[in-house]
Amino acid sequence: MRTSIATVSLSGSLTEKLTAASRAGFDGVEIFENDLLASPLTPEEIRARCADLGLTIDLYQPMRDIEAVPSDEFDRNLRRAEHKFRLMRRLGADTVLVCSSVSPLAVDDDELAARQLRRLAELAQDFGIRVAYEALAWGRHVSTYDHAWSIVEQAGHPALGTCLDSFHILARGSDPKGIEDIPGEKIFFLQLADAPLMAMDVLQWSRHYRCFPGQGGFDIAGLVGHVIRAGYQGPLSLEVFNDVFRQAEAGPTAVDAQRSLLVLQEAAGLAEPPAPVVPSGIAFAELVTPDAEPVSAILEALGFTRTARHRGKPVDLWQQGEARVLLNTGPAARRDGTSLAAIGLESPDPAGAARRAEALLAPVLPRRRAPEDAPLDAVAAPDGTELFFCATDSSELPHWTSDFEPAEHQPPTHHGARRTGHKPSPDGGVHHIDHLALTQPWHQFDEAALFHRSVLGFGAQESVDVADPYGLLRSRAVTSADGSVRIALGVGPAPTADEGGRAQHIALATDDVVTAARRFRAAGGRLLPMPPNYYDDLAARYEFTDDELETYRELGILYDRDADGEFRHCYTETVDRVFFELVQRDGGYRGYGAPNAPVRLAAQHARRPVG
Amino acid sequence: MRTSIATVSLSGSLTEKLTAASRAGFDGVEIFENDLLASPLTPEEIRARCADLGLTIDLYQPMRDIEAVPSDEFDRNLRRAEHKFRLMRRLGADTVLVCSSVSPLAVDDDELAARQLRRLAELAQDFGIRVAYEALAWGRHVSTYDHAWSIVEQAGHPALGTCLDSFHILARGSDPKGIEDIPGEKIFFLQLADAPLMAMDVLQWSRHYRCFPGQGGFDIAGLVGHVIRAGYQGPLSLEVFNDVFRQAEAGPTAVDAQRSLLVLQEAAGLAEPPAPVVPSGIAFAELVTPDAEPVSAILEALGFTRTARHRGKPVDLWQQGEARVLLNTGPAARRDGTSLAAIGLESPDPAGAARRAEALLAPVLPRRRAPEDAPLDAVAAPDGTELFFCATDSSELPHWTSDFEPAEHQPPTHHGARRTGHKPSPDGGVHHIDHLALTQPWHQFDEAALFHRSVLGFGAQESVDVADPYGLLRSRAVTSADGSVRIALGVGPAPTADEGGRAQHIALATDDVVTAARRFRAAGGRLLPMPPNYYDDLAARYEFTDDELETYRELGILYDRDADGEFRHCYTETVDRVFFELVQRDGGYRGYGAPNAPVRLAAQHARRPVG
Repeated sequence: MRTSIATVSLSGSLTEKLTAASRAGFDGVEIFENDLLASPLTPEEIRARCADLGLTIDLYQPMRDIEAVPSDEFDRNLRRAEHKFRLMRRLGADTVLVCSSVSPLAVDDDELAARQLRRLAELAQDFGIRVAYEALAWGRHVSTYDHAWSIVEQAGHPALGTCLDSFHILARGSDPKGIEDIPGEKIFFLQLADAPLMAMDVLQWSRHYRCFPGQGGFDIAGLVGHVIRAGYQGPLSLEVFNDVFRQAEAGPTAVDAQRSLLVLQEAAGLAEPPAPVVPSGIAFAELVTPDAEPVSAILEALGFTRTARHRGKPVDLWQQGEARVLLNTGPAARRDGTSLAAIGLESPDPAGAARRAEALLAPVLPRRRAPEDAPLDAVAAPDGTELFFCATDSSELPHWTSDFEPAEHQPPTHHGARRTGHKPSPDGGVHHIDHLALTQPWHQFDEAALFHRSVLGFGAQESVDVADPYGLLRSRAVTSADGSVRIALGVGPAPTADEGGRAQHIALATDDVVTAARRFRAAGGRLLPMPPNYYDDLAARYEFTDDELETYRELGILYDRDADGEFRHCYTETVDRVFFELVQRDGGYRGYGAPNAPVRLAAQHARRPVG
Repeated sequence: MRTSIATVSLSGSLTEKLTAASRAGFDGVEIFENDLLASPLTPEEIRARCADLGLTIDLYQPMRDIEAVPSDEFDRNLRRAEHKFRLMRRLGADTVLVCSSVSPLAVDDDELAARQLRRLAELAQDFGIRVAYEALAWGRHVSTYDHAWSIVEQAGHPALGTCLDSFHILARGSDPKGIEDIPGEKIFFLQLADAPLMAMDVLQWSRHYRCFPGQGGFDIAGLVGHVIRAGYQGPLSLEVFNDVFRQAEAGPTAVDAQRSLLVLQEAAGLAEPPAPVVPSGIAFAELVTPDAEPVSAILEALGFTRTARHRGKPVDLWQQGEARVLLNTGPAARRDGTSLAAIGLESPDPAGAARRAEALLAPVLPRRRAPEDAPLDAVAAPDGTELFFCATDSSELPHWTSDFEPAEHQPPTHHGARRTGHKPSPDGGVHHIDHLALTQPWHQFDEAALFHRSVLGFGAQESVDVADPYGLLRSRAVTSADGSVRIALGVGPAPTADEGGRAQHIALATDDVVTAARRFRAAGGRLLPMPPNYYDDLAARYEFTDDELETYRELGILYDRDADGEFRHCYTETVDRVFFELVQRDGGYRGYGAPNAPVRLAAQHARRPVG
């Protein structure tokens, strides 16, 4: 279906908004009146700009407080409307949105509302314009879609129809099934917005917290289904008021918006992009660093072995069990020190995974990075992390490991004595990467979860608040259904210039975190010390023996428990902004130790030089 | 009364929190358990630190999910409590907060709750500890203060009392009058928090939006009155969960917090700080600039005359009617270019105004800046702006203008031919400063309004949202009752490193903005051009003649109307981050042209070099 977006959904000048909408592949726009008023372009110039960009102007919006008013007031409204209809002619827009009145002058009289809207439609028709009447959820007398439609029906004019808005319908708790009773040709327009489910004043909710379909809690696909079955032929158009998007760059926001419509169409059965190929494991995590020594020392103390080196680039492969870490000291090393730059995802169908990612607008990275590299499909996540789709153990597909030359005196990398599966390693060895923690750009946190869900086929857990000493962080985990891939997406308390500056980490799974931590320390590794008061609290809450508690205290091991199992974990020191975690999951524990995060964050702040 | 603050109300490590509370003059603290757990200090070290800082530990908090549970669960709770009582002994804290249970295990059985709380109190008594039981607004079975009190009464143990929390009481809409029925000695503790009036989930409201008394919409002083009349003898203690304060520096937040309690005590009749002395006009606005030329050129084109120069410093006085602008090129010039650094406020009692400011913790600035300066009382506002209390026309007090030497060929400054009062100047002349617009630090926006209200005796209007192309701004006006002083406080959409970087402006009152704008342009001044589409919209909304509209369009004059009158205004170009506005108020218009702000902001962005 055709896609459209209201200019109010994007930041910047009208020109910036239009450019962003066009680049993201939208077919049309709704022009928000204030954006036009503030633009230095004339209506004719805006019309030409849209035409150059391949955008139609699908709606001019909004007209307010028109109907069900005393006749002298209505005369003034008609005068105002006539001005706007002339403007719309210059603009080349043929549909105008009229919101149900919130004016204290409006009376509760459907017959008067219908008569005045009919008069407005007659005037509009003279200009070749159609009027789409919409119920605001906080309209004074008309606040539900079926009420708005009954007035439109009563008015009975061909230039008058209704506009449906998913937010206004679903925020009121209306049943969208009744939409199917409206003749499709009388649904002049469909505006779509999702929103997180919140118990709050509906006007504030609408003005500040709307989001793109799939980012909130409404069943937008279900609503679209009803609208399509009613026979609606117009565009799917996004109208999102959101304080965060207002600050974000228009370009990425427009891409996120378009992706949300692609996913929505798939969910509503209106489009069939390539099916998701859910990753089945983490093949590797790639760190870039200007200085390999500090991270190499930690990896070595953790029991990793440098098993291979890339044939053409300064990239070392460090391995232990199924856990693989690439250490890249090449020009890819970002200027801000050591960081987690890429993730290899095991995929049953790497090319298929890349096809879906591309169809859902993920930037596809060049397929080969050097002539001798094995072909690897890769895309960029919204935070810039490179995602490589790999098939490490496939006999049919080229191996990414074939680009690597075994280090001297080391077993070969990809058909050597590696453990397969997650067999217990009672010696405290690491057997795989438990999860990765990535910090997201502040303005794209909601988008990141939608990206991982829709592009990669992950499930997203609820967002949790974590109290850092200097502000509230939010964290949201995305995982494959079987838990073989877990990524924790985090975001800071406020947008900062240094958005990449927060810590990232690699969590390594072991069956015996106490032994693993002891071995790490014996090999010269430094663990993050935890405050003794934490262990007094553990003693109050759980029945550990004194010996156990003393061991945990000595090693800085934290503990959590949920209905399914237990979690013990500890942390290495931090290099620039990267650190490692050793984790032991027992039973079916599903979390990431979130209750311990404030203690860990405070301990990390305490280790950091002030300022 | 003694004042106290919960450590959760301040950001940083426990040490930083304690230091900030002590410096701001608090007598005690509530130690929030998580702050203790995350601290590297032992309980004994925390106790010693508090003693060194002159702080008592008034409360340890919170214990949760204790009461009305099955007996095996209650046994575990008692075990946990005993651990915490031992900890409190080490800490030297003798009162613990127990919140009403939210556990799914809790049953609706007051008798059981009372029996278990009595058992807890018996145990506490063995440790010399008192238990303060509080109703959470979202407690599972106990959510109102009178219910919590009835359980405490039923339990009937001397070591068991109740804790009252203004948020939990007022957010539920409970009538606080019933507090007077509780014996004062059974009110073990009083926690205070205000909150903006919002229709939202009470748990989210409490966890993220609490604020200090006077910053929100609750009648905290009324509630405190009831508590005092009940005979409460404990401290007034702040417990504020707020996402913004979590990110703000602890030091300024603690001062804001203490000020809120001083103002609260005044409002509740518990303290009598020096009475407010409301300013009666704006004596001057002082701009600091590294280069006087651009601003001087604008002032000259606006019709200002350089009437005098400071005897000892590179400060020029520019004057027109009662509007005075000081242009300071001395070392006070901040490194970030031209800015509005100080405001002279006409005061009927400058020394009295300064005494109140000092009593309410406003930093008092050195009284004289150079040996020959006339004594001037001055304090710093939260945004760093210097506020001078002046008596320009007093015959008894020293004149600030006596530090200035009349410029050659100019009439003397302070007893010359100046107009007095706001007489009409039909020639388009400026007769006074209409208002000043200041940008506030993001983390202190609510505090700024409280400062201007409490320290200066201004009234605060509602906060309004203003759509900038790159994010939503908020603006809130503070004014003297007669409108002689108006200050618009603004804040950006997000905290930035460059918080002083946003525009400030001086709005100048004229009786004829068209003539004033024409004269300015004829004298070489550059007005901010406004988009033509804005004038098409004016034509649609109001019945201006074509000539009027053409004039407004030509000069970039904006228009607004309210129930009381009309407002016409236009803007000069911007120098660094300062610009001037010419405003014509007719009738009793009370606003600042907020509906036009998005158009003005877009026009200013359009004039700015990209990047």
